[in-house]
Amino acid sequence: MSQQVVPIALRDLQRPVAGELERVVDELRRVIAADFPIIADVNEHLVRMKGKLFRPTLLLLSSQAAGAQDARAVTLAAVVELIHLATLVHDDSVDHSVLRRGMPTLNALFSHQVAVIMGDYLYSRAIIELVRLDDREPLRVFARVTNEMTIGEMRQLEAHDKLAYSEEQYDQLIRAKTASLLSGACEVGALQGPAAYREALARFGMQLGMAFQIADDLLDYTEAEAVTGKPSGLDLREHKVTLPLIAALGAMPPADRRLVSELMAAPEPADALVAQVVRCVAVAGGLDYARRRALELAQQAEAELDILPPSPAREALRDSIAYAVERRS
Amino acid sequence: MSQQVVPIALRDLQRPVAGELERVVDELRRVIAADFPIIADVNEHLVRMKGKLFRPTLLLLSSQAAGAQDARAVTLAAVVELIHLATLVHDDSVDHSVLRRGMPTLNALFSHQVAVIMGDYLYSRAIIELVRLDDREPLRVFARVTNEMTIGEMRQLEAHDKLAYSEEQYDQLIRAKTASLLSGACEVGALQGPAAYREALARFGMQLGMAFQIADDLLDYTEAEAVTGKPSGLDLREHKVTLPLIAALGAMPPADRRLVSELMAAPEPADALVAQVVRCVAVAGGLDYARRRALELAQQAEAELDILPPSPAREALRDSIAYAVERRS
Repeated sequence: MSQQVVPIALRDLQRPVAGELERVVDELRRVIAADFPIIADVNEHLVRMKGKLFRPTLLLLSSQAAGAQDARAVTLAAVVELIHLATLVHDDSVDHSVLRRGMPTLNALFSHQVAVIMGDYLYSRAIIELVRLDDREPLRVFARVTNEMTIGEMRQLEAHDKLAYSEEQYDQLIRAKTASLLSGACEVGALQGPAAYREALARFGMQLGMAFQIADDLLDYTEAEAVTGKPSGLDLREHKVTLPLIAALGAMPPADRRLVSELMAAPEPADALVAQVVRCVAVAGGLDYARRRALELAQQAEAELDILPPSPAREALRDSIAYAVERRS
Repeated sequence: MSQQVVPIALRDLQRPVAGELERVVDELRRVIAADFPIIADVNEHLVRMKGKLFRPTLLLLSSQAAGAQDARAVTLAAVVELIHLATLVHDDSVDHSVLRRGMPTLNALFSHQVAVIMGDYLYSRAIIELVRLDDREPLRVFARVTNEMTIGEMRQLEAHDKLAYSEEQYDQLIRAKTASLLSGACEVGALQGPAAYREALARFGMQLGMAFQIADDLLDYTEAEAVTGKPSGLDLREHKVTLPLIAALGAMPPADRRLVSELMAAPEPADALVAQVVRCVAVAGGLDYARRRALELAQQAEAELDILPPSPAREALRDSIAYAVERRS
């Protein structure tokens, strides 16, 4: 068992930007507003299922910590959440997911078609809003990040030879799929600050994002459905290879490797087989390895913050690392 | 029977910009290039199935006719084709189409997932390229147009009460779905020209685009599969209500209206029923009405060109109207 730590509540690290975060939701509503009935319905659903605003939080904290004094920060924070939402909507459609944040996905509640079109709608609204700001830099960062995310999604589809999937490929995948947007959020927040702060925060976001995704992938092995809202072992069930399995494979006895092969070959693996592989991964040290790797990235992220002047926002960014690594859902 | 006209070949109207059009394909390749294997495969397929480059043609002709002298015209022409491609890829995925331009669609050849992700990939590449040009105007036009197209797609999904669908709703739909991008192509081509030319060409593109879509919807009633590459009556089969049917419904005897209701209620209407409704629409004057409306829009489009100085490009734009209205596939 890992030692007990006092979990960091998201609300604590949001304190320095609490007032702005409240305005982010109104700004999000404004940017996606439509007078077309079904789009308005879908938007209402999206605003209700809005998550923890982790990306807007990072953007606003980065802005404050870099002394960026950016009047557009609330709008940019709404845009980063909007891009995140557009991505989730298409991801759920691609994965045929039925639940997201404990609520039905758009493809489940409306239809697959509505989900594809709404993702495009949200993304094009984000671009319109960025064009209105009349500054090339946020557009440049977010356009690059969005493109990287699509490449990440494609990498995920293309992992054919499951047992040969390397840690390097996994790193590329989580950088593109998850970390690039967190890095973009931090970078865009700091755009009006000194270049050195901006670059450090972009690196901070990348390392934080990788740690965040590894923690997420670990949860799939460690937490019960009641906590995460997703069935345990779901990634394995869907033949998604993540760090715990990659790390474990090298240390597994041949019999256990055969179980993994069997699972990867089964179109719909039985619950018992999934549970067996989860145990094998733990026994072979896969979970410990992934935890160590997440902590290593967390330490790198933390070191990037040293360049910033002390401030409540910098401390909150530091706490966001603990939040990303230790969260339970 | 309508009188025989000498059909305008696309190649004829492309003559004033033939050299630039050749470079558009290379530019398209450059913009979508990826070093990731499956994306490269998909791109190869997309370049092979590239259409007639009608939107790049309009952009380049508009640029020349407006005397815009825009060194970026070839890049902008590639971008408008790229946005069109991204839209087609998502449309095919939404409609579960298996053929496009006589070739398999991405969702048929690869998978539904690949199609959704590739649409996002192509669109974000288009944005990256526009950001590189460092000019807000093309971005502003194309971001607005892309958003309008998503609203058009949603309108199409949402046409619930088929027999009450009005011509006004149809006009809104084809403006958003088709005409907005043609209008955007003409406007962006003329961006560096005088404001009056730019505005006239934006209106020209909108009217041309509406005429183009009406002609397309007419083909579904008039042409055999061998010519268009799509089964005849496909729109009816899919319960899509277009102008010929809208115009015919008001003039139909009750027995024929009942046939239409029957077709709209049938999940998979029989061939005989589809053929019967096609005949009823013709008898009630639906095809003639749609042809008159397309010609009216064509005349309005033609009048917009009067403000431009005489040039081979202006004449080619005039010919593009005939091409849009008279094409057979």
